[in-house]
Amino acid sequence: MAIRSEVKEKYEVGRSEYMWAKKSMPVLNRLTHRFVSKRCLENFNLGICLHITKETSVLLMALKDAGAEVNLCPANPLSIQEPIKSFLIKNGIKIFSKKDDNLLDFYSNMEGVLDTRPHIITDDGGELHKRALYRKYNTMGGTEETTSGVNRLKAWCKEGLLMYPIIAVNRSRTKYLFDNKYGTGQSTIEGILKTTGILLSSKRIVVCGYGWVGRGVARCAIGMGAKVTITEVSPLRALEAFFDGFEVKPLDEVISNADIFITCTGQVNVIGQDQIEKIKDGAILCNAGHFDVEIDINYLNSIDQNHFSPRMNVECYRVGENKKKIYLLAKGRVINLVGAEGNSPEVMSISFANQFLSIVYLSQFHEKLNNKIYKTPKKIERKIILTALDSFGLKIDSLTPQQNHYFKT
Amino acid sequence: MAIRSEVKEKYEVGRSEYMWAKKSMPVLNRLTHRFVSKRCLENFNLGICLHITKETSVLLMALKDAGAEVNLCPANPLSIQEPIKSFLIKNGIKIFSKKDDNLLDFYSNMEGVLDTRPHIITDDGGELHKRALYRKYNTMGGTEETTSGVNRLKAWCKEGLLMYPIIAVNRSRTKYLFDNKYGTGQSTIEGILKTTGILLSSKRIVVCGYGWVGRGVARCAIGMGAKVTITEVSPLRALEAFFDGFEVKPLDEVISNADIFITCTGQVNVIGQDQIEKIKDGAILCNAGHFDVEIDINYLNSIDQNHFSPRMNVECYRVGENKKKIYLLAKGRVINLVGAEGNSPEVMSISFANQFLSIVYLSQFHEKLNNKIYKTPKKIERKIILTALDSFGLKIDSLTPQQNHYFKT
Amino acid sequence: MAIRSEVKEKYEVGRSEYMWAKKSMPVLNRLTHRFVSKRCLENFNLGICLHITKETSVLLMALKDAGAEVNLCPANPLSIQEPIKSFLIKNGIKIFSKKDDNLLDFYSNMEGVLDTRPHIITDDGGELHKRALYRKYNTMGGTEETTSGVNRLKAWCKEGLLMYPIIAVNRSRTKYLFDNKYGTGQSTIEGILKTTGILLSSKRIVVCGYGWVGRGVARCAIGMGAKVTITEVSPLRALEAFFDGFEVKPLDEVISNADIFITCTGQVNVIGQDQIEKIKDGAILCNAGHFDVEIDINYLNSIDQNHFSPRMNVECYRVGENKKKIYLLAKGRVINLVGAEGNSPEVMSISFANQFLSIVYLSQFHEKLNNKIYKTPKKIERKIILTALDSFGLKIDSLTPQQNHYFKT
Amino acid sequence: MAIRSEVKEKYEVGRSEYMWAKKSMPVLNRLTHRFVSKRCLENFNLGICLHITKETSVLLMALKDAGAEVNLCPANPLSIQEPIKSFLIKNGIKIFSKKDDNLLDFYSNMEGVLDTRPHIITDDGGELHKRALYRKYNTMGGTEETTSGVNRLKAWCKEGLLMYPIIAVNRSRTKYLFDNKYGTGQSTIEGILKTTGILLSSKRIVVCGYGWVGRGVARCAIGMGAKVTITEVSPLRALEAFFDGFEVKPLDEVISNADIFITCTGQVNVIGQDQIEKIKDGAILCNAGHFDVEIDINYLNSIDQNHFSPRMNVECYRVGENKKKIYLLAKGRVINLVGAEGNSPEVMSISFANQFLSIVYLSQFHEKLNNKIYKTPKKIERKIILTALDSFGLKIDSLTPQQNHYFKT
Repeated sequence: MAIRSEVKEKYEVGRSEYMWAKKSMPVLNRLTHRFVSKRCLENFNLGICLHITKETSVLLMALKDAGAEVNLCPANPLSIQEPIKSFLIKNGIKIFSKKDDNLLDFYSNMEGVLDTRPHIITDDGGELHKRALYRKYNTMGGTEETTSGVNRLKAWCKEGLLMYPIIAVNRSRTKYLFDNKYGTGQSTIEGILKTTGILLSSKRIVVCGYGWVGRGVARCAIGMGAKVTITEVSPLRALEAFFDGFEVKPLDEVISNADIFITCTGQVNVIGQDQIEKIKDGAILCNAGHFDVEIDINYLNSIDQNHFSPRMNVECYRVGENKKKIYLLAKGRVINLVGAEGNSPEVMSISFANQFLSIVYLSQFHEKLNNKIYKTPKKIERKIILTALDSFGLKIDSLTPQQNHYFKT
Repeated sequence: MAIRSEVKEKYEVGRSEYMWAKKSMPVLNRLTHRFVSKRCLENFNLGICLHITKETSVLLMALKDAGAEVNLCPANPLSIQEPIKSFLIKNGIKIFSKKDDNLLDFYSNMEGVLDTRPHIITDDGGELHKRALYRKYNTMGGTEETTSGVNRLKAWCKEGLLMYPIIAVNRSRTKYLFDNKYGTGQSTIEGILKTTGILLSSKRIVVCGYGWVGRGVARCAIGMGAKVTITEVSPLRALEAFFDGFEVKPLDEVISNADIFITCTGQVNVIGQDQIEKIKDGAILCNAGHFDVEIDINYLNSIDQNHFSPRMNVECYRVGENKKKIYLLAKGRVINLVGAEGNSPEVMSISFANQFLSIVYLSQFHEKLNNKIYKTPKKIERKIILTALDSFGLKIDSLTPQQNHYFKT
Repeated sequence: MAIRSEVKEKYEVGRSEYMWAKKSMPVLNRLTHRFVSKRCLENFNLGICLHITKETSVLLMALKDAGAEVNLCPANPLSIQEPIKSFLIKNGIKIFSKKDDNLLDFYSNMEGVLDTRPHIITDDGGELHKRALYRKYNTMGGTEETTSGVNRLKAWCKEGLLMYPIIAVNRSRTKYLFDNKYGTGQSTIEGILKTTGILLSSKRIVVCGYGWVGRGVARCAIGMGAKVTITEVSPLRALEAFFDGFEVKPLDEVISNADIFITCTGQVNVIGQDQIEKIKDGAILCNAGHFDVEIDINYLNSIDQNHFSPRMNVECYRVGENKKKIYLLAKGRVINLVGAEGNSPEVMSISFANQFLSIVYLSQFHEKLNNKIYKTPKKIERKIILTALDSFGLKIDSLTPQQNHYFKT
Repeated sequence: MAIRSEVKEKYEVGRSEYMWAKKSMPVLNRLTHRFVSKRCLENFNLGICLHITKETSVLLMALKDAGAEVNLCPANPLSIQEPIKSFLIKNGIKIFSKKDDNLLDFYSNMEGVLDTRPHIITDDGGELHKRALYRKYNTMGGTEETTSGVNRLKAWCKEGLLMYPIIAVNRSRTKYLFDNKYGTGQSTIEGILKTTGILLSSKRIVVCGYGWVGRGVARCAIGMGAKVTITEVSPLRALEAFFDGFEVKPLDEVISNADIFITCTGQVNVIGQDQIEKIKDGAILCNAGHFDVEIDINYLNSIDQNHFSPRMNVECYRVGENKKKIYLLAKGRVINLVGAEGNSPEVMSISFANQFLSIVYLSQFHEKLNNKIYKTPKKIERKIILTALDSFGLKIDSLTPQQNHYFKT
């Protein structure tokens, strides 16, 4: 018997991966079951921009099984899991994305989705919403998966640009408390390990941003034996990081003596020209935020046009007179999705239950909503939490009648 | 030369302790400075119910130095630091509390404070507010320090019983994020070490409640090598504890095999008759919540009227037919204040800055406020955070103009 | 510009990987430099059985550059990094291993290496030594990399079977304290993440064995948010694990309610038929020990001959009447090398410095040694430690003359 | 009913404390039982120098109950727990120590013990042994409890000064792995909390020395949220600390920006004149090593003869032109015994089981031993480990016959 396994068809691999993810996504499976059997999304066209991963396929198949037409484009050109794409296409999901798409193609895929005139738009980053808002046609509503996207939508809302109600799934505690913190925390570390193979024990890591993602990343980095410094622009978060035991410094004070920088800010040019010039020889840069704007890649490209890739998903730039080497991971795109497989099914199960139920909610109640940003309805959140507890086999206490009465005394 | 130090006068000891705390409370010192020099609380009578600790003395002296008349009663009969009491009395603060007060005296001390007709009432637990509300005389406003107190005030507010505006200092992020979590986390562990002297490494500890205090306690307990199980009534908090890596169980499933139980719930009879009967021989019970109601002490007293104290702040009860021994710490009162010195000056500095500035705010703007529960004004919070950063020598980043503009794109 | 990178030649990829590893292996690079320039291994034939990884290639190239003839066979059929193999062959290293080798081929490759009559034998697991001992021809000496191999060599030594001196590199503190603990700790976790994609936060993990590898694995697992139980056969190690804060139990008491089992024992059938029958549905099994004997794979294969692979390096077995599913990773072979890339260059740099210097030592002093098992000479260890400190930029204190004298007073 | 407890007689308090400790010392209780019932130390005079704590009283009472005559002097003038002293005296143990002893008295107490001509000498620090060696009279043997003491004895042994066999209890793995690491780790942190009341979260702590005590202290300090830097003179230990995730630096590089310094080296003048001059204003110094020599107290006393005590067990020194304040805890004596109660009964139970059984061993086999330093006999160690496992309710696995045979294949 040969020791190695045989290679499967790409579609078959995709199906296996879908099955693999699905078995670890009980929260989503249980909560979608009722809607699927009633086919309650029949006649709805969904325009969706998400990372094409095995976990996403479980959401998409559930939406399709509930009767929806699904038109999909990728949220990131480097995060597409090809076998999953094959599997979805074979199962009747329309995907706007070709192999070897360039950046222009990437954006025109979004327009392709909008051309189908989706009733509800689900986005990861806000780029699809931005284009839908320009078009000003009738949309029932939308959902948004990320902090980055919600930040943009809030700015547009302030300026009166919103044309349909948005459910900011990312503002659900059942989303950010789990997916952003534990999910992205682990998968970011995994992405760094997989792309670089370096030892984390003893490394000095700078985590830019102490939001939910930054907290998760910092916790896992410490857990693997690294020394972590936090940089922040929020005084309160900085103070929390300080009392959590981290070193807190302005980026400029640590830029020249850290081994690894991980941006988790949602902001632009956090590591820009000034920083790049001071970084030490051999340092590694990567980004855990949604967009590839947190590290100034244009500047890097401009100063070393002959940068090369010593290893998959690693680019080596030679900077300055002494040609110090800086290693950029995943081209500055989101490391956990490009360098690893994205967040684990256990947390995506919770996040995507928010997505699924919010889409159903919009399909039913969009007429009662204004063109504003809403949180996931409390009732939905509560249902998700209780289902999650049950799925993980957790039992908890409940208040006795005496305790229910206690605070009034 | 003799190796041991000489004993000082009680008043002198109190003064030393006040000085010792004050040097670690720069946030409070800096923020009160301006108001003290203007004596802006001149002609205000303050009715205050707080734990009489060295940190409290720094707050009280600042209030007095700002011109206020201060009438004080203790928030807990077992947490009074006698030298501090002497020091405060010598410095003109009126204290309603005698040595050997019994429980009746304890409550009548509160009435004594109210008899002075304070303009503003500052409480720790809500008991003084409760009595003030009964009296229905004119008060400008009040502040409340604890979660337990705020919960009660919210219930009374719902029933329309509030007679003056309340600033719920405990709902300020600059209070609960630091004082409750890091402060009480450490001091609770300290209280257990000091009263029992046991090794925490390898012990199985049940933390009841995963609010801010429970989180802080759990974190320190794990940090000292214990195994921690969380019990909760909130599904969301239970899920967070689970993903934070803790074992989460109903209390009944762990009641018979844990070594130490720490109640951090703000609720009544969390460890009641049913639980006490199942607890294992030799287990230790203590409470980190404000009131001595979380463990059913009446039941314990009823089943072993001959309980004895094998060690200061430890009571041994013999329960059931086989006379298993249960050790109750600090008579079920708040272990960090009775068994140790309460929370550290570094965090009390932040909490009491909230108190001081809220009291000043009430003295100035009470007429514009309704009989409702308010959070600490945002402006005050921000001032405290920035002063804290500066006091701890922390510098942080700020947004560039490009970043300030970024979310709008 | 296309977003994805181009594919390189396999040899080129191997060269890049070699360069990538080499830059993180300063300890090895510095310590071999002098011997390479003197070509001090000229005329020595080395028979080597190691995992064919990028880090190994740095050792092998250094040996070759020091003049040695290198004959290599893989230590594990599933851990071969093909591009590295191509690179090494192109650089004149003889490799006994073909694509699609079966298990018989795997062992006959070892015989192929021995047919070249190596002067010094370097092994990882003891299998090559075992075959060399059977042959009884003249060998100057040997080195051994693993705990598993050293345990076997000790047993053979006791029975008088050793035919040449062995330097047990694994018994060097500069090997096991770093490579086994931090290296295998991280890479085992990495292997689990990569093969399964599951979330570690909240999982219940059983680590069988609390030796250096088990300690490293347990530490990283806890660091990533898992709950860890240790099983042991050594009373002392069990007690250490207990005081380190872990739950310590016999395997039978935790077998039915853990999510993941990681064997780190060096022993056979740790998870055997009895255990497999009790494991819960959906559990994951993997092995961090050298040989694929710690989990009883023969039994698994016998009860489900139709086991299938839902995902690369995962086998699904259906067990018992209710067909519960058990997932075996990497076919029970060493997960960090099959499921990930093996230990990081930073620690392999230290381990392989031990190997290199021990080989040189044997080449020079073999005549003075008996057919026994030796530790790495102290002088070599010291040189490695000091080079490591210097490579990592660490400076430390030294004793003052007064301190040097102190213990005598 | 009054809320506070009544004060007990000192002797009664001592007895309670003895009982309290004893209930947490099952390892010692079980292992001494057989020897006590046989009174196997009848006619033996024991000269003992140990810290007079509740845990020590359990050892001493067991020795006495086994028939020995016990003559005791304190190992540290500041660590005497007075109620325990009263209790021991009332129970027939001779104690050479008066209240208000000065340093001369402290040493002459040791001579007092030696004047009784003890058959076996048990010491903590080596000072009693040193004096016994000068006297050169007949002693059967001795035991030593600390690293500091063993280091001195090794130096004396090298110079041929040993006059009787020594069992270095501290070199037993059942001593240093538990007592030094977990015990002193916790109690040192406890001592700092109790003497200073400061918050550990966010503090920068320098731990000098990464031996067993240093490791335990560093682990607890990190666990409480502090940032820890290690200083070392041993390259190997420095490297371990580095990979354990700590910052490792020469003391000089961190001397001016740390908040707390804890010496755990066993060495003299680790924080000497040079260091004291560079320490930052407000820093805290304390020592976890046996002797009060690690911090140069003489120098401190010489530069501020008017140093004062702002708080029990804290001395404030004003240093340099700008009168920066340095706080010395416990007069530089061992902080865990002076500032807290010493190590917990759970670990002292294991350490003192080593002491008890070693004393019995010496009483039986002293004639077969040479004037050398011995480890605790393996058989004793094994008995202690197994009893400890059993006491803590731990069950572990054992090798199957197949596994017992495995390494030979």
